[in-house]
Amino acid sequence: MSEKPHIYDLPDSPHSVGWTEPRTLRLASSEAPMKLEGGASLGPIDVEFETYGALSTSRDNVVLVAHALSGDAHVAGWDKTAEALGRPWRVRKPGWWDPIVGPGKPLDTNRFAVICANVLGSCYGTTGPPSLDPSTGRPYGLSFPVVTVGDWVRVQARLLDALGIQRLRAVVGGSLGGQQALEWALAFPDRVDKCIVLAASPRLSTQGLGFNAVGRFSIMNDPHFRGGEYYGGPIPHAGLAAARMLAHITYLSESGMHSTFGRKFRTKGNHGFGVEFEVESYLDYQGKTFVERFDANSYLYVTRAMDYYDAAAHWGGGDLVEAVRRIRSEVMVASFSSDWLYPPARCKEFALALCRLGKPITYVEVPSHHGHDAFLVETDIVGKLLSSFLADRRRPHVIAKEG
Amino acid sequence: MSEKPHIYDLPDSPHSVGWTEPRTLRLASSEAPMKLEGGASLGPIDVEFETYGALSTSRDNVVLVAHALSGDAHVAGWDKTAEALGRPWRVRKPGWWDPIVGPGKPLDTNRFAVICANVLGSCYGTTGPPSLDPSTGRPYGLSFPVVTVGDWVRVQARLLDALGIQRLRAVVGGSLGGQQALEWALAFPDRVDKCIVLAASPRLSTQGLGFNAVGRFSIMNDPHFRGGEYYGGPIPHAGLAAARMLAHITYLSESGMHSTFGRKFRTKGNHGFGVEFEVESYLDYQGKTFVERFDANSYLYVTRAMDYYDAAAHWGGGDLVEAVRRIRSEVMVASFSSDWLYPPARCKEFALALCRLGKPITYVEVPSHHGHDAFLVETDIVGKLLSSFLADRRRPHVIAKEG
Repeated sequence: MSEKPHIYDLPDSPHSVGWTEPRTLRLASSEAPMKLEGGASLGPIDVEFETYGALSTSRDNVVLVAHALSGDAHVAGWDKTAEALGRPWRVRKPGWWDPIVGPGKPLDTNRFAVICANVLGSCYGTTGPPSLDPSTGRPYGLSFPVVTVGDWVRVQARLLDALGIQRLRAVVGGSLGGQQALEWALAFPDRVDKCIVLAASPRLSTQGLGFNAVGRFSIMNDPHFRGGEYYGGPIPHAGLAAARMLAHITYLSESGMHSTFGRKFRTKGNHGFGVEFEVESYLDYQGKTFVERFDANSYLYVTRAMDYYDAAAHWGGGDLVEAVRRIRSEVMVASFSSDWLYPPARCKEFALALCRLGKPITYVEVPSHHGHDAFLVETDIVGKLLSSFLADRRRPHVIAKEG
Repeated sequence: MSEKPHIYDLPDSPHSVGWTEPRTLRLASSEAPMKLEGGASLGPIDVEFETYGALSTSRDNVVLVAHALSGDAHVAGWDKTAEALGRPWRVRKPGWWDPIVGPGKPLDTNRFAVICANVLGSCYGTTGPPSLDPSTGRPYGLSFPVVTVGDWVRVQARLLDALGIQRLRAVVGGSLGGQQALEWALAFPDRVDKCIVLAASPRLSTQGLGFNAVGRFSIMNDPHFRGGEYYGGPIPHAGLAAARMLAHITYLSESGMHSTFGRKFRTKGNHGFGVEFEVESYLDYQGKTFVERFDANSYLYVTRAMDYYDAAAHWGGGDLVEAVRRIRSEVMVASFSSDWLYPPARCKEFALALCRLGKPITYVEVPSHHGHDAFLVETDIVGKLLSSFLADRRRPHVIAKEG
């Protein structure tokens, strides 16, 4: 959000994971497809993922990071394949959570094997709408099946199976990644030691559903969208840009926008309908750059997964306390004071449901004016929370009182 | 927002102003154009307005109502010209503030002469982008000059001049109408007895600027927009609908949306990207109906006026207290607890600025879950506030204490 130059750990820094290279594994095939929550079967399923740090001999030091809506598997370090794979935006900066993942960092790669996989339906190497449908030889487009957060987590479980990893030291994610972390604790209670949910609640608000609907409306009504069959031709850039601009407002807070942009003009005396205010310039930039790096169909699928996710409905017949009864992980929930997409009051509901059952729960509301984006921006405090929660503390024994 | 059938006062009800008919007056001409704040000169300027109730012989009983972004001059009663003038949406229901304006109602037409005029640049009878430019014989489109809230108020002042009305008993409006009420008190301090500002602050927030920018982006990137020259051909319906859907979310509150729509599905088992959730159906309807009744170019002009308005910058060199020093009206400001477009904290800033100067000010924060729309929806409490503030109370004399 800030326009000041970022200081990144360069690849040769002792704190960087250095040069990285994505890997891909096939986790389902045409012959042995995977059954999805929506009822469809899908195969092949290829998953792009990255790993940082060494797997311990007992394979018990794995931390799974789940990415958010427009994220990817490239969490940390510098992607040596960025140019070759046509991902120029990765050339200029390291992975999206580089301050959190690396040697000596909160997700310390001297200690943990950190892994992140691009979700099903996205567009960064994992099978999604832009992938070729083997039955037609053409991109799936809208014939790609609906995917859910539950599907994502089960695909990740297959990936861990393939890598011979039975148990996670921790699963952590923010926003839609936080909902994946939560779903891990619900779907695989015996495979997760610690579950860390940042800036996410067990379901999206009605307002959030509304914003997603408007974004999809913009995409699907762009004449270049052509029912999702735009591959090889002009893409629905204006619709996707509008969706992103709108979503971006929901990632920031009014107080943060006010202090960064206020009502400052970018132009003087040039009244009209183009970019005039600083905030317009910022949103315009966000829209334009997003179009270069994200697929419009994937945007539909991923936002729909965000809409559908409802932990209480899926696991507890509508009752969140019933749903979380199955959780056996230690859980930390961190919300951010100015986040209005997943506001603290909603994040806390999950923590309170665990609390009500006497399950171990750490809940923190981080003061921040960075809105929903805070889980990406407030890396100092988020890092400290992660370090502390992941430390192998012995729980203090309760000393029986004398007397 | 509610789907329950509305009970309207029908035209023959003793509480209705009955059948109404808009009037139009020419307030500037090609020969004698009006100079606008942006520097351009515009003429002719025709203004459509409605009046309800009789003007007193001393012409001292006038209440001016200012409408909001997508509003019009048809405040109350049933428009007998609706079908003839191609405004079918006015056939089904009375004017937009019918519960407030009428015989025995808070703006009591037995007592007051109520007047409302469609703003410059809008599309309901007053000169705007769809109007014919006499110099070309074609609609103005984007060659229409930029207009401001200040221009609107000066056009209204011309209208009052033409009607022989020197002084207003009150000016009242909500949202962008509230900013017009405020501007009246600033621009014409000697012409306003009472100024009533509902759900409006002296300037739009950065977040509000952002939402308006996304709405305009959607309109201007609709291929039917064609640089604003779409008259006579297909209109930019998708872009305008997207802008309206988005804006509508900002008019409601999350708590209101939650209690009305929650996460209820409209369809069962029909997973995809169409209308599935109730809230999607609602927004879809709002978008579709808006396109039938509002002009896309006008939407650009009116939202830009909303962006630009900044009472402190214009009248006080950036200092709100300095700006309001010129106000000589009694002022009432009402904000609504769940309004996040013009939140109570921002509305209160205007009240506090007056307070700091010892000027008469009544500030009320109305508890409501109807968000920004509350000024239209909460007619009971808004009506009571208006009645009370407009009552010809004698101020209690201060009795000097004995002793």
